[in-house]
Order: sequence, then C-alpha cells, then structure tokens
Amino acid sequence: MKVGFLGLGAMGHAMARRLLDAGHEVTLYNRTASKADDLVADGARLARTPAEAAKGAEVVFSMLFDDATTQAATFGDEGIATAMEPDAIHVCCSTLSLDQARRLRDGHAERGQGYVTANVLGRPPAAVAGELFVIVAGPEPLRSRIEPALKAFGHRIFAVGDDPVQANLVKLSLNFMIMSTIEQMAEVFALNEKAGTDPRTVFEIMTGSFCNAPVHKNYGKLMVEHSYDYPGASVTLGLKDTEMFLAAGHDYRVPLPYAAIARDRFLAAMAAGDADKDFVVLMERARQDAGLK
Amino acid sequence: MKVGFLGLGAMGHAMARRLLDAGHEVTLYNRTASKADDLVADGARLARTPAEAAKGAEVVFSMLFDDATTQAATFGDEGIATAMEPDAIHVCCSTLSLDQARRLRDGHAERGQGYVTANVLGRPPAAVAGELFVIVAGPEPLRSRIEPALKAFGHRIFAVGDDPVQANLVKLSLNFMIMSTIEQMAEVFALNEKAGTDPRTVFEIMTGSFCNAPVHKNYGKLMVEHSYDYPGASVTLGLKDTEMFLAAGHDYRVPLPYAAIARDRFLAAMAAGDADKDFVVLMERARQDAGLK
Amino acid sequence: MKVGFLGLGAMGHAMARRLLDAGHEVTLYNRTASKADDLVADGARLARTPAEAAKGAEVVFSMLFDDATTQAATFGDEGIATAMEPDAIHVCCSTLSLDQARRLRDGHAERGQGYVTANVLGRPPAAVAGELFVIVAGPEPLRSRIEPALKAFGHRIFAVGDDPVQANLVKLSLNFMIMSTIEQMAEVFALNEKAGTDPRTVFEIMTGSFCNAPVHKNYGKLMVEHSYDYPGASVTLGLKDTEMFLAAGHDYRVPLPYAAIARDRFLAAMAAGDADKDFVVLMERARQDAGLK
Amino acid sequence: MKVGFLGLGAMGHAMARRLLDAGHEVTLYNRTASKADDLVADGARLARTPAEAAKGAEVVFSMLFDDATTQAATFGDEGIATAMEPDAIHVCCSTLSLDQARRLRDGHAERGQGYVTANVLGRPPAAVAGELFVIVAGPEPLRSRIEPALKAFGHRIFAVGDDPVQANLVKLSLNFMIMSTIEQMAEVFALNEKAGTDPRTVFEIMTGSFCNAPVHKNYGKLMVEHSYDYPGASVTLGLKDTEMFLAAGHDYRVPLPYAAIARDRFLAAMAAGDADKDFVVLMERARQDAGLK
Repeated sequence: MKVGFLGLGAMGHAMARRLLDAGHEVTLYNRTASKADDLVADGARLARTPAEAAKGAEVVFSMLFDDATTQAATFGDEGIATAMEPDAIHVCCSTLSLDQARRLRDGHAERGQGYVTANVLGRPPAAVAGELFVIVAGPEPLRSRIEPALKAFGHRIFAVGDDPVQANLVKLSLNFMIMSTIEQMAEVFALNEKAGTDPRTVFEIMTGSFCNAPVHKNYGKLMVEHSYDYPGASVTLGLKDTEMFLAAGHDYRVPLPYAAIARDRFLAAMAAGDADKDFVVLMERARQDAGLK
Repeated sequence: MKVGFLGLGAMGHAMARRLLDAGHEVTLYNRTASKADDLVADGARLARTPAEAAKGAEVVFSMLFDDATTQAATFGDEGIATAMEPDAIHVCCSTLSLDQARRLRDGHAERGQGYVTANVLGRPPAAVAGELFVIVAGPEPLRSRIEPALKAFGHRIFAVGDDPVQANLVKLSLNFMIMSTIEQMAEVFALNEKAGTDPRTVFEIMTGSFCNAPVHKNYGKLMVEHSYDYPGASVTLGLKDTEMFLAAGHDYRVPLPYAAIARDRFLAAMAAGDADKDFVVLMERARQDAGLK
Repeated sequence: MKVGFLGLGAMGHAMARRLLDAGHEVTLYNRTASKADDLVADGARLARTPAEAAKGAEVVFSMLFDDATTQAATFGDEGIATAMEPDAIHVCCSTLSLDQARRLRDGHAERGQGYVTANVLGRPPAAVAGELFVIVAGPEPLRSRIEPALKAFGHRIFAVGDDPVQANLVKLSLNFMIMSTIEQMAEVFALNEKAGTDPRTVFEIMTGSFCNAPVHKNYGKLMVEHSYDYPGASVTLGLKDTEMFLAAGHDYRVPLPYAAIARDRFLAAMAAGDADKDFVVLMERARQDAGLK
Repeated sequence: MKVGFLGLGAMGHAMARRLLDAGHEVTLYNRTASKADDLVADGARLARTPAEAAKGAEVVFSMLFDDATTQAATFGDEGIATAMEPDAIHVCCSTLSLDQARRLRDGHAERGQGYVTANVLGRPPAAVAGELFVIVAGPEPLRSRIEPALKAFGHRIFAVGDDPVQANLVKLSLNFMIMSTIEQMAEVFALNEKAGTDPRTVFEIMTGSFCNAPVHKNYGKLMVEHSYDYPGASVTLGLKDTEMFLAAGHDYRVPLPYAAIARDRFLAAMAAGDADKDFVVLMERARQDAGLK
C-alpha cells in the first residue's frame, strides 16, 4: 500500500521499518529528519511536512508524542488533513485523551476523510520483531482496508468497536492496570517491610505463584530494588495517563476509585520532587505513609 | 516423622495424603471422622480428639477453618497444647488473623512448645500433586526441623522470617492481591462496557498481553461471564480476608487505601444480598455505580 | 465610580442594584436586555454589547455563568477587553476554574489592563441587603481602587492575595466544604438509618450541638427530607465545581482524597439519572451502597 | 432517686455533682477514691467496689474509660451486675464500641436487669452547668424511668430508639463528624497554603460565613495555628473512635469511604510518631502529601 508515516520515535521507527520491509511504499515525516536516514537508504521517501507525507497515500499513520502534536500535525496549516485524498485513512497509534480522539474522528469526518485508532501494546523490540498487539477501532470497511498495513508490525489484531475512541479507551485501561498494580504492590511491600519481611522475598513469592504477569514482574522488580532513576515512564507521564483515564470516567459517568487514588499518589510524588523519576517511585509514597525511612 | 494432622477439608486431606505417602507416621483428627476413611485404610491412625492426634507427635499440623476453630483445637480442653511434647512443633497452615497467629505463638511459648506458621499457596489439585508453595516463618532451628514434612506437599518453600506472624501476613497480602485485582478489573470492565466495548474483548487483550497471570485469568474470566453463583470464595470470605489485611495495617500503622476500598465494595455487596456469591461479584458494584443494568 | 456590569442573573442583578443605589454610574449588559428594565428605570444605562458596557468605565464587573461565557464576554469580538481604558479594571465575580482565571489575568496584562477576582459568598437576598462576603485577590493598588465599589454590596471584604487566582481557589474551597459536608452527613444518615434510627433525629442532634453551621442545617435538612427535586444547585453543577477543585489540586500538586470521593459520588449520581436533581441527592448513593430501598 | 455512679473523671465528676445537687441519693465508685472527696463532703456515699455502688440503687450510671474497664466494672467479680436489683437499670454514658454495647445489653438481659445507653455531648464545663445533650436509647419504660436522673445534668434529652446500641452509634457518628471535618479542612488549608494564601485567612472566611459551627471553629483554629501539643483528644483516641465507627459500618454493611480515609490518615500520623498529639495533627499528613515543609 501507499503509506504515510509521521513520528519516528523508537516505536514509530520500528513500525515504519516493518512497513517498509513488508513492501509498502512509505513516505516518512519526522521533526528531526535525520531519524529517517536508514529508512530512506532502504527506499523510503522523506517528506518535509506532514501534508507532503499524506499526499497520495492510502493510509497515513501517526505515532506522535501527545494530543497537541497530533492535533497540529493533523489539522495544522501543513497538517495531513490538508492533503489527504477523500478515501484515504488516518490511522492514529498514539496514546491520546478521548477528547483528542474525538477531535480527530470528527475533524476527518467533516472533511470526508477516514479515521481509525490503532493503539499498540509492546515495546520497541517487539515492534522490530513484528510482535506488537494492535487494538483497533473504527468503522468498517475502514478497519479491513488498513489490515494489510497493520499486519506488517502487528502479531495480533484486536478489533474493539466501530468508534475509534473505543480503542483509545482500551489503551488507557491497560495503562491504568499498570498504575494500579504498582499501587497494589506498594501497599503490600510497605506493610511487609514494616513487619520485618524483605519485600524482595514477597516479590519472589508473588511472582513465583499467581501474580506472575509481566505487569507484576517488570514493575515489582524495580520497586523492591528502588530503581527509580532510569525511568521507562516518568511520574509526569503516569499522572497524565491516569488523568486521561479519569477523564474517560467523567465522560461515561463511571466512578473509578482506584484510579483516583493512583492520581493522588502521583500528585504526592510530584510534590515530593519525583516528577522525572520512574513511576514505580509511587512505592515511596506508601513507604512514607508507613513511616519507613 | 511422627506427624499429627488436624483438619481434613479438601486441602488438608490432600496434604495429609502426601505426608502419608511420603512415609510419615500420621495420626489424623477431623470433626467428621469419615473424611479420614481412605487415609486410615492406607495406614494412618485416627484420633478422637486433637490432643490424641498430638500425643507423641514431633510435628502437629493444623489446617482448620478459621481463628476460632484453630484456637479451640489448640488451647481448648482437648486441644493439642494439652498433649504436645516439650520439643514438639505446631505447624499452622490456615489463613488466620495476625492476632490469632500471635495467640498461637505466645500460647505455645508459655508452654515451652514450638510454633511455626506454614501457609500454603495453591488449590487442592496442586496439593495432591505435591506442588504447593509454602510460606514458612518461625524461629530456627524449628523451621529446619519441619522441612522434611513440608517437602511432602510443598514444591517450593519460602522462609520469610523468624516470627511466625510474618508468614500469616504474606498470606493475607497475597489474598489482598486477588481482591484488589478484582477491583482493578471491575473498574476497567465497567468503563469499557459503558463505552460500548465488550468486556470479554478487553479481557482477551489484557490476558493476551502483560496482564496474563492466573490472578487475571481466573478471576477476570468469571467476571466477564458474570459467573457469580458457584463461589470458589464467597463475598463473606473476601470481606473477612480484607478486614484481616486491614487489621494488619492497623497493627503496623500502614495506611492501605486500596484495601479500604475493597472492604467498602465487599460491604456494599453484602448489603446488596450477595454475601454467598463468588467474590468476583464485586464487578456488580462497579457496574451499578456506572448505572449499568 | 463609573461602573460597567455584565450579567444580571439573580445575584448579578442584586449587586448591580446595590451599585446603582450607592450612587455609582452604572452601564449594564445582559444577554436578555429586559432583565435590566427596573435598573434602567432608576438611572442605569443599557449597553448592547459587553464592549459598550466597558467603554469609559473605571471598573467593569462580570458576574456571568461560567468559563466560556466569561471568556467570550471578555476577549471576544465585542468583549470588554476591546474597549477598556488602559487603567480600567475588570473585576470578575463568577466561580471559575483556575485556568480561566489565569487566562483573564494574563490576557488583560498583555493589554495593559487591570484584573481582580472578587468572588462573593451569600445568596441573592444577602446581596440585596448588601451583606455579601467578598473574597478579593489581585495586585495593589488595584484592590484598593475597587474597594469603594465592592462596599456597595459587600458587608465584609477579605483580601487573600496579590494573585487573582487565589480568590478563585478560596471560592472553590468553600464550595468543596459544601460537597464534602454532604458526603459526611450522607454516611452518617445512611448508617444510622440502617441501624433503625431516624436520620431526622440524628440531624436534630447534630445541628442542635456542635454541627450547627448553615452548611449542616441547610443541606442536612434537604437530605433527611429527601428534597431533591427543587435544586438550589444541581448534581451537574456540583460535579463541575468538584472537578475544578480537583484541577486546582493538580495545578498545585496537592492530593485531595475527600474531593476525589465526592467526584465519584457525583458521577454515580449522574449515571443514576440524577444530573438535574439537587446535589444533596448524593445521599441516595450512600443509601444505595448500604442496600437501603 | 437512689443512684450509683462509677467513674469520676472530669466529666463523670461533674455529672455526679449535678445528680447530688439535684437531691438524688448518690453512691460513688472510682478507682482513685480521693476524686470523690468533695462529693462525699457534700453527702455522697463512697463504695469500695462497683458492686457496692450498685447495691440498692434504682439506677447505676457508668462513665468509665473504655470497653474493657466498663466490661470489668459491670460483669467482673465485683461488678455491678452481681449486686443490681432485678428492676434496677444500668445507664452507660461512655463512648463504647457497638460490640461492647451489645455485651452490656445482652449480659444484663440474661440477668433480668435493665440497660440503657445515655451518651452525652458537651465538655465538662457544660456538665457542671447542667447543659449537656443526652442521647438516650433503650426500651420503654426504662427510658422514662431514668429521665428524672438524666435531667440533673442534661439540658436536652434525645431519645433515638429502643435498642441501646442506637445511642452508641449516634455518639460515634458525631465523633466521626469531627474527624472528617478535620480532614476536609486539612485538604482546604494545604491546597490554599501551597497556592500562597495564608490558611488563617481561609479559616477566617470559612468560619465567618457558612462554616461557622463549633466543629469548624474549635478544630480549625488549632489546625491553622499548628497547635498539636496540648491534646484535647489524641491521635490514638481519634483512631480508636474512627475504627469503632468503621466497625459499625461493618456490622450494618454500610460502606463509609470518608471514615476509611480518616483511618488511613490516623495510621499515617501514628507512623509519623504523632500518636500522642492532638488529632488535628492530621493537618500535617495533608501538608506532607502536598510537599509542604
């Protein structure tokens, strides 16, 4: 397919690479153009603006940082919406607020353009290996039309609904699972530590028995080792994601007490000066409340 | 070893069977004696009182229902403490409150008897297969002395500390992981359901990616299928365990906000008439708050 | 003084009346012009646009419905900012989000115009009687310059700081005191009702002893009488105010657990179809959780 | 009436004094007998045991420290239950757990003795002046029969039900109103302080407007002045009362989210070493979470 691709962070780069290697005709846009060098060397074209990347494309992927950058690259002066063909489809892969997803959906609809959300699960190495999970939502037949492209990087593709926003919500939900698992474990570790038991032993028992998912192992290990300084995801980002999840609760009128507590923990972490630490530093809020250290 | 064993529920029976099959000399006590029939047929002796089961034993296991039954079988008129040898060891495997664990520890210490907590993780089939995880706490050399017996049913044995209460707390912590994971998932499922996405799809994505532990799969499946009527563990039991965990938080002065919310959900479930349903029925509290159904 | 005044709801009308009667020269703007009839009959001038009301005024009051209406009437095409004199002062009396207060402050500053927040406490009859409390924040000497005007309707004037936003926050805080008092009382009433005690009796004891403030008496009475259908303030409004308070917690990194719970209660009330009821209907969430009715 | 009276703390002493001055025939018991000296000088009799104080009395008041002391003085070897006449009535005025109230009610019923709860509101000076509020619960005609005695110190008497436990619950509810008002104000003060506004100013506005009850004024003043060191009531006591309120929620299956948060704050205060400070020190938990100081 003829594919436009915006955003060459670690994840975006790996996805673009997969698309190129699968034989798609790829035109790239990235603010820092040099990130595209290796892909261009292998046959991708480089666009100077988002609009240029969208020109003539059947599908335009975006994998940009946040709501604001996505909005600008879509509906700004040189945004893709100015150049997309009537039957082209914008496939947005970023984790966005539901409000932003609605703006994309409605803005493209007004222009007679297609819009689908396709959020991905996995880390960059999984993307490189084509083993991402893809959560896709949007109207048929758009979902079917983009499937060949999604298969370039997606190992499994889950269709969750006809409204693109549904995929964004599933993605926010999965991020909430991470945040709230950190809080769960923080309570367990702090209590056992105060009772004289090494949290690492508790971690070993948990992850050796029925709490042995990556969400337990990856984050729990960082917690019991107090590895806060090389953030995979920062407190700032954790707060943002949690607040987007709570905003979804607002939109659909669903109380979310665990999310509310996670938010308060993140705020306390920000207040304690830990904005840039790994978000497992929530552990320290539980420890402080317990009078540890 | 010469072993006394109290309590032949599904779990206790499987553990006693393993002890017998491993060649230990086992004397059994159970309120309903007929539960011992097959074990007696294979060489176990049957005692008419807890005291009789303890007589001459090096180790006396108890796997009874709760605090009260354990207290009675230990320190009651015909309790094991009346008959234990000075160097015998009571190994209690039940999930108890920390207060009860302290009563056992201190009551045996006053009598010059040994006491160790050895909580088990796993279900009866795992016990039958000798694949339980054992969380053991108590002073050395008592822990080492009982190890040959523990190995009869325990695949892995985790020593968590010198104070028996530490093992009880780890066990309560693991139960809390279950309760709070149910609440996590309830919030996610209710919110997505209200947004029009089938919770079963969300469950599939979660358990297909980084939330794929038994704690997610086993309980999440019951939740999305609304299977509340064949309780593995009831709301009443979930409330009891959560309150024991909160009581531990009281004892060690550790705030436990997620546990507090789980408690409130269990109370609301009791108030709604769901005391005897499977505790995954917490799902319905989240759904009701969301105005579903 | 020469005064412009935007917004003739019940409260705004009473305040404008006080300004007029105190001898100030008042130019009014209201979307529905007829609301100004009696004031015009007594000497006020009527403007057709906000800008016209601001022309030549030393002070321009706004008492509009919300963030959006205030933003439009201030910085819109016919907004007051287009017509204010360089040394004129916009005094905003509405309950707004802190973000909106910052937009007003910064937008006027860019234009070299003055801005002060002056939130009022009290109901329209108190305004008519000139007995409002005024919470004022903004830089000196602006605060002093507007004081003669504030005295027209303000019985007591509290200066809380040099940044206008501080007054907005105090106002949101007082509204939070109301929401959280409703939740407090809801828990008390539901629990006692379930124990067989008439909540009206509990209300009488509370308000007869040390919980006898208007915040207890006014809202508690509606609660025990289940008077939900003639909303002084609706659930929708209560949710909005609570979320603005929580947003302030975000801005300053302050966890607010009671506010978070109030928000969840409001969401559950919305989900239950009570959006337009008086916000004391939170009572019914506590009752439902308790299995009452 | 012939009255026995147990417990001459500040409150009990004032109540006994009122009974004596009203012409009742009073026999006193207090662990430290000297506390009775002035009352004995004015005509009261002194008993050496609770039982002796109960002998021949129509009504026996108890105003003791807690569950345990009340239980011992009632059903212990020399407790009042050993000496009460069949138609005598035990009137318990202490703040007790509902479980203890039930033990008193049921224990007396087994013995054919009467039992009524009569909790009091007010401080010792109010008791001296006969201006207490009395919350009374128990079966008729017992309530009527004790009324002449209650009038000696009670300005207003509120009957809340036929089951004595109902009065205990109302008393716990009022104590909860105090704890939760402290948390409300702590959130408000911490947030405004971080926004640069002096909490004393906010306190002045609150208590100058619609939050002007004693519960606001008395505790709020201590909070904004950081007066933690001369405890009217300690964190330890606040935690105890809050946990008794939560236990009542358990008994009647009523979720109490605000109480749960207050409990967590008290635990964090204990963990921070503030067990013996005035319970308004909860303020410091909100401040710490906000990163203040």
